[in-house]
Amino acid sequence: MDETSIESCFVEFPTRDWRDSDAAGAVRLAVVGLGRFARNRALPAIADSSLCEVTTLVSGSPEKAKRLATEYDADHVVTYEGFRDGRVTEAYDAVYVATPNAYHAQYTEVAAAQGKHVLCEKPLATSVAEAEEMVAACEDAGVTLMTAYRLQTEPAVRRVRELVVEGVIGDPRHVSGWFAYRNPDQSPSADNWRRDSSVAGGGAMIDLGVYPLNTARFILGADPVGAYATTVVDTSGAAGDHDRVEARATFQLAFPDGVDATGFASFDTYSDNRLQVLGSEGRALIVSPFGGTVTQEVVVERGEARTSYAGSPVDEVVEEFEYFAYCVLTGTEPEPDGRDGVADLRAVEAIYESAERGERVEV
Amino acid sequence: MDETSIESCFVEFPTRDWRDSDAAGAVRLAVVGLGRFARNRALPAIADSSLCEVTTLVSGSPEKAKRLATEYDADHVVTYEGFRDGRVTEAYDAVYVATPNAYHAQYTEVAAAQGKHVLCEKPLATSVAEAEEMVAACEDAGVTLMTAYRLQTEPAVRRVRELVVEGVIGDPRHVSGWFAYRNPDQSPSADNWRRDSSVAGGGAMIDLGVYPLNTARFILGADPVGAYATTVVDTSGAAGDHDRVEARATFQLAFPDGVDATGFASFDTYSDNRLQVLGSEGRALIVSPFGGTVTQEVVVERGEARTSYAGSPVDEVVEEFEYFAYCVLTGTEPEPDGRDGVADLRAVEAIYESAERGERVEV
Repeated sequence: MDETSIESCFVEFPTRDWRDSDAAGAVRLAVVGLGRFARNRALPAIADSSLCEVTTLVSGSPEKAKRLATEYDADHVVTYEGFRDGRVTEAYDAVYVATPNAYHAQYTEVAAAQGKHVLCEKPLATSVAEAEEMVAACEDAGVTLMTAYRLQTEPAVRRVRELVVEGVIGDPRHVSGWFAYRNPDQSPSADNWRRDSSVAGGGAMIDLGVYPLNTARFILGADPVGAYATTVVDTSGAAGDHDRVEARATFQLAFPDGVDATGFASFDTYSDNRLQVLGSEGRALIVSPFGGTVTQEVVVERGEARTSYAGSPVDEVVEEFEYFAYCVLTGTEPEPDGRDGVADLRAVEAIYESAERGERVEV
Repeated sequence: MDETSIESCFVEFPTRDWRDSDAAGAVRLAVVGLGRFARNRALPAIADSSLCEVTTLVSGSPEKAKRLATEYDADHVVTYEGFRDGRVTEAYDAVYVATPNAYHAQYTEVAAAQGKHVLCEKPLATSVAEAEEMVAACEDAGVTLMTAYRLQTEPAVRRVRELVVEGVIGDPRHVSGWFAYRNPDQSPSADNWRRDSSVAGGGAMIDLGVYPLNTARFILGADPVGAYATTVVDTSGAAGDHDRVEARATFQLAFPDGVDATGFASFDTYSDNRLQVLGSEGRALIVSPFGGTVTQEVVVERGEARTSYAGSPVDEVVEEFEYFAYCVLTGTEPEPDGRDGVADLRAVEAIYESAERGERVEV
């Protein structure tokens, strides 16, 4: 693609480039964990999707679950114990795991043992070892495992990856990405699981830093080989009876062929996020990719030519469930599969180790 | 300053906040070195400035120097030898050193011994040791030494610093800045001094990386305490008979109080530059600060409030010469003094050492 034609690179592109055949039917889902994201984003998205439906809610709070079951027309409500016991396995084909991070492995493995496909929230687990067990369990059971990286199903982000792969910006040289997000759940005074190291597996890096990390890997089509990092533990607010997590992580990743990336993730900084790939001949910028349902503003430049795109807002969570269901219905391996989640955790562990040791750590 | 008032923070600000008294007279300059920047930017800027004038040109190319002397109405043309011998010392009050980096120290020390003030191009020298000798020479001689950081004289950048100091974005948390610049002088096939390690002192980091480095230090009012870095040596093109320099540097700096910065500098990447300070309560963005004469587009946000400013283009090089002359005429110590240049070189040396050792290096 030359300078004159990049102006047309966003004129037409498929909303769902992954849907190359017509998937039919509906995947029946059990939603495990009814926290804020599951309630506010996932359940409405499942209701809006054409390829899946919720039949089962799993929660430790029966009242909340019953209210939501009525609202979303789910037939079954079970406790975590009931889910583990396979109380209503005939009611669902797949499981969406939306528990705190430390319980992802357990419920993914329960689902796999039940022969159910799994869409698991990010990060896939709190450690590489746990995540690898999840991958093995799903492979052994012959079920699909997808890590819930909604960015990978966003049409404009996918289009940017295509353009980078096609060489529109030349050879990629440097990625800069960050995700700072303050929300009430993550304020210094909040005492929730995201601030409990043993449940979350870490702080801002594992919760927010995985977005620029995973999106950089997705666009570059490569895994980092080295990591440098610094973390800052938030000492304000009450820690409760758990270990304090990092409120901020600054990281630098070396990819093959001399490509570098810098990143920043924070709970206690003004909300701002951005991702840019600089290449030898141009740049591709996604203005504000990580905040959720936003107009995906994209800028691509090459030489003197510049094009920008600001499509209608896309609910990435709907896309994510549609993509997962499509993969299940057609037997397609998801792009953000279990190994993709493992690869991010390898980088996250290297980042934490680098911050601890003050050295570059091989990934 | 609260959310409602940040909208007015760029309504009025002084073009030259440093000029608190009326400086009178004109500083007569010798321009040492007539390379591309001196010819295309410095000589026109001196001609446009009200507080200085060029009287003397120093060059190894008599033809070029004579042509420029006619064009810019300079009375004297001398060789480097003639300058060292003090051939026309009565004709100038100050010296602008625009030679390749490795000669900055020599000509600064010659000027100081002549009792002349010095404006020296960045980087101040090719090493901390050299730069410290320059500072000592100028202090001993009682002359002004300014490092030519034109960004520090740019009105919008100075205003951003004021706003950050006033706490408009809360506590600074993270700075991201980069400067990628391809120009014909720096292409892989060019065989010029910027690609000769022994003359330039390094590659993209010392030539371009000092812009985000110095501007971050300027806005934060702090010096880095630790550095992590990766460099990529450009192996394309002919190296000539000199050591190859790095075509790219990716760096991460730890400032006091848990403030971090990430940076990138490159000769062989699509031209793009940016600087943003993220704070606990807001952000301050300078959209494209390092390219030269550009409209200084600035965005400041705090909470729900957002203001942006895009003033008329300011020729920073004119501002730089005006500021230098003002400092000389009023006996004011320049903000970008010799020690400022030394501080950047300390960080640059730590960055190179970190890239070499694969470890965090204390600055």
